Amino acid sequence: MRAEDEMSYERDNIRNMQGYSWGEQPSQQRVIKLNTNENPYPASESVATALAQFSVDQLRRYPQPFADPFRDVAAAVHGVKRENIIATNGGDELLRLAITTFVGAGETLGMAEPSYSLYPVLAAVQGCNVVKIDLQDDWSLPADFAGQLNAAGAKLAFVVSPHAPTGQLVPVQHLRTIAQQFDGVLVIDEAYVDFVDPDLGYNAVPLIHELDNVLLLRTLSKGYSLAGLRFAYGIGAASLLAPMLYKTRDSYNTDAISQSLATAALAARDEAAVSWQRVREERGRLTAGLTGLGFDVLPSQSNFVLAAVPGNGEHRAPRLYQGLKDDGILVRYFDQPRLRDKLRITVGTPDENDALLCSLRKAMQLND
Amino acid sequence: MRAEDEMSYERDNIRNMQGYSWGEQPSQQRVIKLNTNENPYPASESVATALAQFSVDQLRRYPQPFADPFRDVAAAVHGVKRENIIATNGGDELLRLAITTFVGAGETLGMAEPSYSLYPVLAAVQGCNVVKIDLQDDWSLPADFAGQLNAAGAKLAFVVSPHAPTGQLVPVQHLRTIAQQFDGVLVIDEAYVDFVDPDLGYNAVPLIHELDNVLLLRTLSKGYSLAGLRFAYGIGAASLLAPMLYKTRDSYNTDAISQSLATAALAARDEAAVSWQRVREERGRLTAGLTGLGFDVLPSQSNFVLAAVPGNGEHRAPRLYQGLKDDGILVRYFDQPRLRDKLRITVGTPDENDALLCSLRKAMQLND
Repeated sequence: MRAEDEMSYERDNIRNMQGYSWGEQPSQQRVIKLNTNENPYPASESVATALAQFSVDQLRRYPQPFADPFRDVAAAVHGVKRENIIATNGGDELLRLAITTFVGAGETLGMAEPSYSLYPVLAAVQGCNVVKIDLQDDWSLPADFAGQLNAAGAKLAFVVSPHAPTGQLVPVQHLRTIAQQFDGVLVIDEAYVDFVDPDLGYNAVPLIHELDNVLLLRTLSKGYSLAGLRFAYGIGAASLLAPMLYKTRDSYNTDAISQSLATAALAARDEAAVSWQRVREERGRLTAGLTGLGFDVLPSQSNFVLAAVPGNGEHRAPRLYQGLKDDGILVRYFDQPRLRDKLRITVGTPDENDALLCSLRKAMQLND
Repeated sequence: MRAEDEMSYERDNIRNMQGYSWGEQPSQQRVIKLNTNENPYPASESVATALAQFSVDQLRRYPQPFADPFRDVAAAVHGVKRENIIATNGGDELLRLAITTFVGAGETLGMAEPSYSLYPVLAAVQGCNVVKIDLQDDWSLPADFAGQLNAAGAKLAFVVSPHAPTGQLVPVQHLRTIAQQFDGVLVIDEAYVDFVDPDLGYNAVPLIHELDNVLLLRTLSKGYSLAGLRFAYGIGAASLLAPMLYKTRDSYNTDAISQSLATAALAARDEAAVSWQRVREERGRLTAGLTGLGFDVLPSQSNFVLAAVPGNGEHRAPRLYQGLKDDGILVRYFDQPRLRDKLRITVGTPDENDALLCSLRKAMQLND
């Protein structure tokens, strides 16, 4: 034990960093929760059946260390091999593993700005540097994104597609070019990919066969209505996944129940796809409703929309956020450049979206 | 993407390290599994009830980020406060978090040798150095353990109590002295503490009030028959836990089902305690049986025994391990100094222990 006047035990970089700021997770169920992009519809019947059939006796022993039954289903769904799949305890674990595995302390990772606010937190934990590359005025990645990453010596970069918080899709051809030009590992965070309009034909999976530095992140949190389960997976070249599978991952990182339910969920992908279509329809209706109230809404391929508040947006947006909250409706407000005049709103059920639009209309009148 | 003749993308220390070696986890249930220290008895009825009452709808939203309901039950069980408890995705996560939080790349951690083989793997992932301090001939920690740690500049040290793979308990007074003298964080890995004879009055929890550098690890994997659930927790001073709780932990590290079942399991501690007593009784009977076969068995306060093979042990032990395996009985063999002549055998049910003793007797005759 150290003397009392000495500092605490954590490393300097941990002491000096800020932790992640969660979206609110209220314990009461009555709140209309449009702030953390959960799917408004329940998981498929197949998941409920898997849960009902699971026995506590199956928990007495250690789980399958690699979640191989899940990996086999995921491989079949995506037309790849088991060795191209890694299962993780939520997407956060895969992001952390990517940094742990590919970026050393003092080295650099890259990301687009704005982007998922967890990336810099994970970088700070590892003690590595972050180069933030501004999105262009139309929120697309700059053409020389890979060049900027290479100039900064980045070992790894995060791209989100569809992007959060804008909902914009990054064309596969652009992702391919970035990965071809980038000297490091390109993580394509596809947490919201299930909500992309299928008519667009977006599919980044073939990139993993062409390029050994592409890691796709998929999660069951949003598309499969299983945010509470903590289950995600990566898709990539076997050589890219191997060090995470066999070295840096906690040795039993996913539990037996999660493995069982996640396997059932992915095997019943068609059931979940019904909810994706319903979200897409409501996304259109919500966008129209917000536009009707004067908001400028970016076209979204995700299960949320980013809506710019009309008038003095930077002044009004935090007030609207609070007004909605007072009405029992949670949305997300980011107090950061380019986002201070906007609200990020998860697409809910028709009733939830109606309640949101109604409450917004009232709050806008009160705040005028 | 790099040119083909270049090296792979992972960091040098990851490329050069060896991953963890799992104890075998056979998919077939017919094996008598005495190799990875699972509890031979099922989890309590309260856990089964919690599972039956859990609805898939509860998985749609994110889990409580800190597992607060679990922390409150754990705090009540141990007579501490919520702020003294951190819930983790298995004990492995807590071990990893301790290294991530308290030991930087290039810094040093300490451990007794032999000990849990995961520690050096986690150290290699972080890129930190390991100082291994040999246990004494009687397998106890040397009196100047803390002095050796300080001399090596260790930021953190792992002590296992009861120790694995010997099963020996470290007296609380010795743990206190080590923590008082040690300049870093002392992790006391109590994965097997539930199997300690209650008459011994062993209780290290009060140390966390005296010493701000003591972190106790508890797991539900062994004592609560929930190895498949991946749920563990740490007990320590609030100041010690805070950086792990708010900075280095994955933001939703435990899932909603695990939280629910773990809370039920700990609240029904008395039910689990019945299995602990049965294991202790069988531990005595197994020890006597092995001794009768000529083995030299260390007195164990855990749910396994370390048994030295009589005669030319280093020659016979791996053969006995294989002979048992051929009979469908798995035990653990460690090919490392001081352990090459021994088998580590988990205490099973009376039937399992009888089968083990019977098969051992046969294998010893065949190998003579």
